[in-house]
Amino acid sequence: MTETVGSIGEFGLIRRINDLVRREGVTPEGLSAGIGDDTAVLRPRGGWDLLVTCDSMVERRHFLPEHTTPRALGRRAMAINISDVGAMGGRPVYALVSLGLRGQTAVADIEEMYRGFLEELNPFGAAVAGGNLTGTAHAQFIDVTLIGEVEAGRALRRSTARPGDLILVTGWPGRSAAGLELLLGGQPVASAREQELVAAYNEPRHRAREGRAVALSGGASAMIDTSDGFLGDLAHICEESRVGAEVWEAKIPVNDSLSRVAERLARDPMGWVLGESDDYELIITCPPGRVDTVRTALHSVGDAPVREVGRMVDGPARVEIVSPAGDRRLALPRGWDHFRRDES
Amino acid sequence: MTETVGSIGEFGLIRRINDLVRREGVTPEGLSAGIGDDTAVLRPRGGWDLLVTCDSMVERRHFLPEHTTPRALGRRAMAINISDVGAMGGRPVYALVSLGLRGQTAVADIEEMYRGFLEELNPFGAAVAGGNLTGTAHAQFIDVTLIGEVEAGRALRRSTARPGDLILVTGWPGRSAAGLELLLGGQPVASAREQELVAAYNEPRHRAREGRAVALSGGASAMIDTSDGFLGDLAHICEESRVGAEVWEAKIPVNDSLSRVAERLARDPMGWVLGESDDYELIITCPPGRVDTVRTALHSVGDAPVREVGRMVDGPARVEIVSPAGDRRLALPRGWDHFRRDES
Repeated sequence: MTETVGSIGEFGLIRRINDLVRREGVTPEGLSAGIGDDTAVLRPRGGWDLLVTCDSMVERRHFLPEHTTPRALGRRAMAINISDVGAMGGRPVYALVSLGLRGQTAVADIEEMYRGFLEELNPFGAAVAGGNLTGTAHAQFIDVTLIGEVEAGRALRRSTARPGDLILVTGWPGRSAAGLELLLGGQPVASAREQELVAAYNEPRHRAREGRAVALSGGASAMIDTSDGFLGDLAHICEESRVGAEVWEAKIPVNDSLSRVAERLARDPMGWVLGESDDYELIITCPPGRVDTVRTALHSVGDAPVREVGRMVDGPARVEIVSPAGDRRLALPRGWDHFRRDES
Repeated sequence: MTETVGSIGEFGLIRRINDLVRREGVTPEGLSAGIGDDTAVLRPRGGWDLLVTCDSMVERRHFLPEHTTPRALGRRAMAINISDVGAMGGRPVYALVSLGLRGQTAVADIEEMYRGFLEELNPFGAAVAGGNLTGTAHAQFIDVTLIGEVEAGRALRRSTARPGDLILVTGWPGRSAAGLELLLGGQPVASAREQELVAAYNEPRHRAREGRAVALSGGASAMIDTSDGFLGDLAHICEESRVGAEVWEAKIPVNDSLSRVAERLARDPMGWVLGESDDYELIITCPPGRVDTVRTALHSVGDAPVREVGRMVDGPARVEIVSPAGDRRLALPRGWDHFRRDES
């Protein structure tokens, strides 16, 4: 008989998770009490600021159990939070995991999900320090709160871009949206190119090390990750910094797999690249004289491609797209909005 | 037309929440970035440890929208986390709120819920520092992560009770369970006594100030709040401290409203007092010579009644109940288990 969450109960599951975390996870120096008390107890390091973020994933809305594995799900839930900490220039230290589970869920699946969390946390020496378990009759959910640290005063915000700054983007935004569309299309995912895009959706990679290197380099004026899609997140920089942006369509990176799959599905790949997509690339702004500093910082920790795709401009907080022919149009950022879909 | 979460969208709702929090909330000194960036940025105080906890409430499982108000719901979601921080001896500083919402939900209800959060946080000078919004098609959920602080090394654990320690309990455990039963019974809640019990369920009061005073007094050996019910939480102390406990049934506090309503419903009030109940009283253990220290600390911050109801004993980690006649029986703690119910 498969062991379920309901059959071993809440406290049985807490014990199993605690055992797994102790066995397979790490314990940061500052953690004096983790799972198993009213709260976790952490001793912050002097001279460092704390970064705190949380992100939820709801079954069927953010993940499709039939198209992923519990371990990949755990990695993804943690990676999207690590991305936020990295986009501020920090590194993760402690995670709290709050799960809403059905009683019929297999214990082995939850253990696999925790292995996914640890796969993302262990390389940073970061730990699962606590959490909460609760029952739900419908969609299961995973809510991760992540605490990171950054040298005091060095957090890099989204509100500090200036007119004249260049806009840089790492990697290949849009791959995740294409991967999701492939999954939802119901066709078998056959080619390596298609698998690459599906993996970009199911197991997104954060750029936290790159983000931290950029923040510490002092070269950038603002930074954000692309969790709401490229235009959506660039619009956040505009709003918070109270400046405009122009994006040079010809410079936008469209990777080969994306182009080929777009062709096969008769799609405009630019829709994926600019619109809603669960990628975790970085948008970085910096004065033109600092581009080399930013590039050097990025390349000190990996080989992520980085491209100059536009610049911040005086004027209202909005994004204009400049076509290869030089025409301008106003972008209507349609970043991921979790509620509008409910209306349809 | 009622303004809904779906009609103003995720980013519209974030703006509204941000406005409300700025207008009606407080900003602790250490908060340098709150809502509106990838993460919140906090500067921890030197010489203090951080306490971190999270707790979720799922619609229909932890709250019944038809029997409460959004503001009471907000207060309750925050109070249960404040209780955890207080039970470690700390005070709350920052909250992150993660909501899973249906698009049809009224914006005014969410604003009221935030007012409930702030009503609990403001008296401590604590702030909503961030959070996450997501859509859900079924049961809505509220997941609060609360960060507190306590003087370094002064957190009071549940794992440090010793044989011979007395067991004290504050207030009136069980009132919340009785209140829930009244609500579910479907009869109009008429008398003041009944209303008192229903309020104990809908708007539980934490004992965070009392918990902090007890921890700082140095008189107690262990402490926990009764969120899993009196026996459930006493069993947590036994397990984590690896000691037994005996509870003197004759000394267990049963308040007058509880007795009367139990009589009317033909119930044993002891079932409510000892079993599952969403009360947030404190169980405190201390050496017999320190009872006065603990009592003095408790009374320095309020007039919560406190009673000696048993003692920790050598032996296996379990709870025995001693009847008024002196008979002993083993308690089978049935604290709140979120999953077992799914099996039925």
